[in-house]
Amino acid sequence: MDLYSGHINKLIDELSGLPGIGSKSAQRLAFHLINMPKDKVGRLTKTILDARENVRYCRECFTLTDSEICPVCANGKRDHGTIMVVENTRDLAAYEKTGKYEGVYHVLHGAISPMLGIGPGDIRLKELISRLEGDVAEVIIATNSSLEGETTAMYISKLIKPTGIKVTRIASGVPVGGDLEYIDEVTLLRALEGRVEI
Amino acid sequence: MDLYSGHINKLIDELSGLPGIGSKSAQRLAFHLINMPKDKVGRLTKTILDARENVRYCRECFTLTDSEICPVCANGKRDHGTIMVVENTRDLAAYEKTGKYEGVYHVLHGAISPMLGIGPGDIRLKELISRLEGDVAEVIIATNSSLEGETTAMYISKLIKPTGIKVTRIASGVPVGGDLEYIDEVTLLRALEGRVEI
Repeated sequence: MDLYSGHINKLIDELSGLPGIGSKSAQRLAFHLINMPKDKVGRLTKTILDARENVRYCRECFTLTDSEICPVCANGKRDHGTIMVVENTRDLAAYEKTGKYEGVYHVLHGAISPMLGIGPGDIRLKELISRLEGDVAEVIIATNSSLEGETTAMYISKLIKPTGIKVTRIASGVPVGGDLEYIDEVTLLRALEGRVEI
Repeated sequence: MDLYSGHINKLIDELSGLPGIGSKSAQRLAFHLINMPKDKVGRLTKTILDARENVRYCRECFTLTDSEICPVCANGKRDHGTIMVVENTRDLAAYEKTGKYEGVYHVLHGAISPMLGIGPGDIRLKELISRLEGDVAEVIIATNSSLEGETTAMYISKLIKPTGIKVTRIASGVPVGGDLEYIDEVTLLRALEGRVEI
């Protein structure tokens, strides 16, 4: 639309392309940014660029982090023999927030979805398998309880079972169809406690 | 919170400070930005900085625009003797979208609010008054129908009446308490047609 000047239209267009930002929010945000003090806008854009530039995957668990190894993997007090498999870094953060899980993680960065054409080769599954060559006692699968999450859980379970390593799935305290990052800590803990072998 | 790495936490903090973006949206947005191709992130931040740098107030009506005079004020076919007073550029855009208003605008950039300590001197009212020295036949007050908008309308009306210039207020087709930018075009037009002298 040509309601505004070129720069404003372009800014609204760019912002509308971000997830969860509709055309009205984009307009509101655009005018907010234009009216913000110049130094604050500079700080915001610098923070975005810095994060994009410096955040990388942890060499061990593939979560997004600033350093070569993330704080969880670098922590000698964590139980490195227990690996919780999650779909993304936000899900990892959701379990970290409970403060009760003492193992480490593996971040898949996605879930198997035949519908979306996402296969086992498109997520960090190969990397999980090579970690199992170390001293691993249990793999806890904490993918979402969506169709994709369940498919991924089944796939991983079948893949690991032959190795003799214990494979568990977090209990269905997590509501079906729910997204892990939006669930309260108590439910997350109950799901962890009630995990069953699959 | 220290759930994520420094760069991610900083980015989430910055994004949470934007209007309408809660902590969950900020997280989602942050990870989206981190996973975006580098050139797209660069384009987004450049667009933000360009807009902040180049957007200015129209010399005539004070709407936000790229040039010294906005396209509406620069348009000789518009009726420069009819001035519609709005609170901000988004409200101007809402009326422009109807495509039926042929006059020009005056953007106040706010409304009088004793509660928030915003007085007549804090909005572009002085600038409106000096425009009335020209050949103006009518001032249409299209501030929001909120308490602040009504207060502003009354204030402007009392200020202009003595000059003999016709002062009108858009009709109450606009729902009480409503924000102009969220109202459909039909209602906006009905409100314009039904305007009454105040």
